[in-house]
Amino acid sequence: MMLADQPPAAALVFQTLLAHGPLSRAEVGRRTGLSPGAVTKVATPLLADGWIAELGRPAVERAHGRPATLISVRAQRARFFGVKITADELIGVVTDLAAQPLATARAAFASRDVGTVVLAIARLIERLRSEVGALEEGVVHSVGVTISGDVDGQNGTVQYSPFLNWRRVPLAQLVETATGIPTVIENDVRALTVAEQWFGAGAGLSSFALVTVGAGIGCGLSIGGRVVAGAHGVSGEIGHLPVGGSNRVCTCGNTGCVEAVASTHAITEQARQAGGNPTLTMDEAVGLAHAGDPAVRAVFSRAGHAMGLALASVANLIGPERIVISGEGVASYALYEDQIRQTFGAQAFGAAADCDLVVRPLPFEEWARGGAAVAAQHLFAPTK
Amino acid sequence: MMLADQPPAAALVFQTLLAHGPLSRAEVGRRTGLSPGAVTKVATPLLADGWIAELGRPAVERAHGRPATLISVRAQRARFFGVKITADELIGVVTDLAAQPLATARAAFASRDVGTVVLAIARLIERLRSEVGALEEGVVHSVGVTISGDVDGQNGTVQYSPFLNWRRVPLAQLVETATGIPTVIENDVRALTVAEQWFGAGAGLSSFALVTVGAGIGCGLSIGGRVVAGAHGVSGEIGHLPVGGSNRVCTCGNTGCVEAVASTHAITEQARQAGGNPTLTMDEAVGLAHAGDPAVRAVFSRAGHAMGLALASVANLIGPERIVISGEGVASYALYEDQIRQTFGAQAFGAAADCDLVVRPLPFEEWARGGAAVAAQHLFAPTK
Repeated sequence: MMLADQPPAAALVFQTLLAHGPLSRAEVGRRTGLSPGAVTKVATPLLADGWIAELGRPAVERAHGRPATLISVRAQRARFFGVKITADELIGVVTDLAAQPLATARAAFASRDVGTVVLAIARLIERLRSEVGALEEGVVHSVGVTISGDVDGQNGTVQYSPFLNWRRVPLAQLVETATGIPTVIENDVRALTVAEQWFGAGAGLSSFALVTVGAGIGCGLSIGGRVVAGAHGVSGEIGHLPVGGSNRVCTCGNTGCVEAVASTHAITEQARQAGGNPTLTMDEAVGLAHAGDPAVRAVFSRAGHAMGLALASVANLIGPERIVISGEGVASYALYEDQIRQTFGAQAFGAAADCDLVVRPLPFEEWARGGAAVAAQHLFAPTK
Repeated sequence: MMLADQPPAAALVFQTLLAHGPLSRAEVGRRTGLSPGAVTKVATPLLADGWIAELGRPAVERAHGRPATLISVRAQRARFFGVKITADELIGVVTDLAAQPLATARAAFASRDVGTVVLAIARLIERLRSEVGALEEGVVHSVGVTISGDVDGQNGTVQYSPFLNWRRVPLAQLVETATGIPTVIENDVRALTVAEQWFGAGAGLSSFALVTVGAGIGCGLSIGGRVVAGAHGVSGEIGHLPVGGSNRVCTCGNTGCVEAVASTHAITEQARQAGGNPTLTMDEAVGLAHAGDPAVRAVFSRAGHAMGLALASVANLIGPERIVISGEGVASYALYEDQIRQTFGAQAFGAAADCDLVVRPLPFEEWARGGAAVAAQHLFAPTK
């Protein structure tokens, strides 16, 4: 039995238990608006098939009537593997049904060709699987692989991933064949946004944006509990908002893009030019800025200004409750935070400036967990 | 009985009939996923209270079994008044339950003070009411008033409307007191987006943006069938996206805003400067551009470039299926359409460029209908 085959009320009961359980049937009814009879009706097959379990008599009994039995999600009923692909490394995680990580692992790959990377993914999953021990009979498991770029999750194809230089790669099918496990794929930032929405800084919010700063600048948007996918597969491309202020040419060919000024790559390049040192690294640029080098500080300030304009654009268009800033670039966030907040405050329109800006370092293991969250999401409510 | 008091299944049946009726009960069941018994159960009180009606025996009978009786929304069961407030005029419409306009009217107001405008609204509604004849007993009616600016529909307050220079005006309560009719208010662009989503260029789309060009530049965003409201009351402020390219100071105090270059006011001002004629009107500027005046054509081209960047920003962030361009400014759209499309195509990221750009002149009566649509929306599914 797949959860997706169950009626909508079953998904509602299951998700309520996942988020708030253990709960009594009466409490599930109160939270879902379902009648006690309806809760019992949908819970029965879920119990029979091991998706949920009765915890027996609760410690505290009700003031009147018979004691309420608590029911809970059975976390061991499913395992999800999440894999994030970077330009040179895989980061993997295996979680239980409640998205709790059971083990993590990393693996470098020698070449970026598709076959090599798919084989490395299969080996990584095998390693994770052996680390958490044998599967119980009947345990559902699936894989969620995430990668930056234009990813068509519906048909499982990576349309274009610049860092790996992949075009039209049927990645879901390839990983499924190599591992023998059902596989879904998703854009890495959208997957991380799903994870943050479910159990991170976006939990319980009506809307939020997750902005990731690194080699690229990405953004996931969650509105009304759903991550915006984009009708044509593109959304959250905050790095290519045209905020002007520079003649630097972006990877997309335009000038004025946020990414052309504020990505870690762009900051390094500008710091090299500012100091006349063509081999300066990002770490060295950060060091120079902390030491007070005015030219390098100006580079960070310009990046902060572009980021502030980009965040204000998100706030003015969408009006999210919160914007979460993360990614490798947040390591140097202190160098441009003041400029980001100042520009954001000036450009955000009216009450849009009330949007909460928070910085949250999210290691790559959390990104991998995003893959597991996407796999879990397909189990509960597969998209068409 | 208010529809909002009915179970969710009743709203589903009602909305299905509104969008697709008349339908047989079996067809309603097929479209809603409800069992025949459930359809009958929720339809019975709706029939008894006159929200829906049986049309009697259909002309075409089913191939087998007894003939299916068609049911339909009873359009005369409710009337909605919609009013749009501009800087110097009210535009009003009265519609039936199916949002079909029954009459429209306009009225100028002598002064922008709140009392004068509220009185003018009450008189306009009285006029519309008398034009469509006496109410049947028990007919539900409500008013939706729309106005540009920061409107808090939840508590019925206009926080700030620049064109009228209103701040913290409890408009819903004032109109309700003056008319004796339940009243809701909404930002005018968001209300027009609701109308377009329901019965206009957005009907049936997974997502779309409505961009209005005029004295201001606004935008409504519809994602997954819901108009984005903004957690802090602000959303769709496309006019204040910082696309750079000009030192002109915007009404919001910043430079680089789209509105500072592309609003009708900004175009007129720039054309005056370009031609050294301080009394040039927008119509005259349009005439000069059509006649080939290179300086004035450059003004329109700059406006088109800023608009193209703004539309690309919407496409890159949200990825809507379609962007509808409307507003007073579309009268001169031919003068900058090429530039808009060229800039949009260059800046839209990857498949975001596949977003459909359509121009749709929407007279103020359609904006007023947006108010009626918002009033109707509250009847069916009031927000908390």
